[in-house]
Amino acid sequence: MTIFDEATAVSRRADGRYDTHPDQRFALVVPGAATPPAVNGGALLAAVLRAVLGESPHPHPVATSAHFLRVPQLAPAQVEVTWLKHGGTAATARAALIQDGKVILDTTVTTGTVKESTAAEGLDWTGPPPGFPAIEDCVDLGRWPGTVAADGAAGYAAQVGVLMDPATTGWRQGEPSGLPEMRGYFRLREDRAADALLLAMAVDGLPPVVFGLGATGWAPTVELTWHMRAVPAPGPLAVQTVSRHVSGGWFDEEAEVWDSAGRLVAQSRQLARVGRGPVNGTGANGAAASLSTAPSPAGR
Amino acid sequence: MTIFDEATAVSRRADGRYDTHPDQRFALVVPGAATPPAVNGGALLAAVLRAVLGESPHPHPVATSAHFLRVPQLAPAQVEVTWLKHGGTAATARAALIQDGKVILDTTVTTGTVKESTAAEGLDWTGPPPGFPAIEDCVDLGRWPGTVAADGAAGYAAQVGVLMDPATTGWRQGEPSGLPEMRGYFRLREDRAADALLLAMAVDGLPPVVFGLGATGWAPTVELTWHMRAVPAPGPLAVQTVSRHVSGGWFDEEAEVWDSAGRLVAQSRQLARVGRGPVNGTGANGAAASLSTAPSPAGR
Repeated sequence: MTIFDEATAVSRRADGRYDTHPDQRFALVVPGAATPPAVNGGALLAAVLRAVLGESPHPHPVATSAHFLRVPQLAPAQVEVTWLKHGGTAATARAALIQDGKVILDTTVTTGTVKESTAAEGLDWTGPPPGFPAIEDCVDLGRWPGTVAADGAAGYAAQVGVLMDPATTGWRQGEPSGLPEMRGYFRLREDRAADALLLAMAVDGLPPVVFGLGATGWAPTVELTWHMRAVPAPGPLAVQTVSRHVSGGWFDEEAEVWDSAGRLVAQSRQLARVGRGPVNGTGANGAAASLSTAPSPAGR
Repeated sequence: MTIFDEATAVSRRADGRYDTHPDQRFALVVPGAATPPAVNGGALLAAVLRAVLGESPHPHPVATSAHFLRVPQLAPAQVEVTWLKHGGTAATARAALIQDGKVILDTTVTTGTVKESTAAEGLDWTGPPPGFPAIEDCVDLGRWPGTVAADGAAGYAAQVGVLMDPATTGWRQGEPSGLPEMRGYFRLREDRAADALLLAMAVDGLPPVVFGLGATGWAPTVELTWHMRAVPAPGPLAVQTVSRHVSGGWFDEEAEVWDSAGRLVAQSRQLARVGRGPVNGTGANGAAASLSTAPSPAGR
């Protein structure tokens, strides 16, 4: 069993009730750091979806809405699943991740059936794909600081491999592109086929788009809805994220996930809070961020 | 009080419990027609949001996820609201529209505060706006067949005015553009300022995007999530919708709503089922889009 499958496992206690345990190995900040260890939202969502899909009459989570309410502890938690509808085409459940009686993550999941990525039948139309660079031309984000313990063993960045389009990594050198866009490839470091659970992580797998505007720092997801559009083919997942609007401390981030067969397999939009770290560049509408030459604080 | 406000009214019975009544005046198909009278989903959502906002510590529904499970009857219904979190920046409630003990519409709503459309403070960035034609160059959809009773009094299309970019109305003459795109202006026929409740209707206010691929017929929304991004300025709302992927009977539809001050005030994505009506045109993958001279969606 892979670390991902261990870290997102659920254990059935009764109908609609499961035990789970947010796992340090997918924490964004390791224990002992200044901030609490926030387990990657995709890993939490994968655990919830595992419980839902185990009970679902349909195989795929076609629409998953998730509101992130609290940061979980690295301690026992429960998943509660309540079915609202069992239809022939779609079934809908509410599912929540609960800890100490409080909802950490509240979701509604509609399940159904999507086709294999390479199948085509009936009305079939896809917009033009983003321009992804060749994977060998991408920049490996590596095991970035703040998510890997001193012994190198733990943390989200030790589990996933993110290879970025160099056009979207200027923020690493304090030279943000001025555009809220990220493009790259997402995979587990372990060998594991892509499926719905991994797609739930991939849609939030790249650095926050606002890094491209110079706004670094933790950008907590408030709400994320994602749609599974096809069963992914084997191979790496190409992910593009963009934002359309940043203001009042809120930003949207839209992700598209394309599989190795060149098909759109997942889409998402999230609403998140702009991180409270320093902003390099003004982020004024349009151009100013790209003019910034301010050096990045060490360690970001 | 406007018809919209009457039709989306809720009456408090107890904390978190309200009475409401899906209203024939916002039904998409009038009673007596071959199919049940489906009240516009935006009108149902507005009633649910009215109940939530009346209890919310924050003024705006920044993130609303809605799963549409069943078609309501034109009969008494209830809204049940359960708060999951009251935070300083955001509060989250589950809210459901219930009829005969069954969930019609299940939502999770996170409330917060967004800025006035014309205010600017902190990091503020917006992508390029869609190219909307002047409102006087648009085509009034009028009171289209199937939503207005014989006496002309009732139905959704009698309450809203939709003025469409003529580039996106070829489907009316059996000549779909070949692109899943709609652009137009949305307003109530009555004089009423735009607010969160009206934005909830505007994000699903245009004809289904797949009409542009020739797939007409009722296209039921399965899930719709929308984000309020700013308080709209007075005046008409400009709406653009696009799809990125249609397959397996499912399609996505993304909406952007821009106010008269030229600011992005709401965004949504919905997953819907392709209507079962006849398909005019092939909708074949890629070809239609690449041959079209219509502009591609901004920022995508």
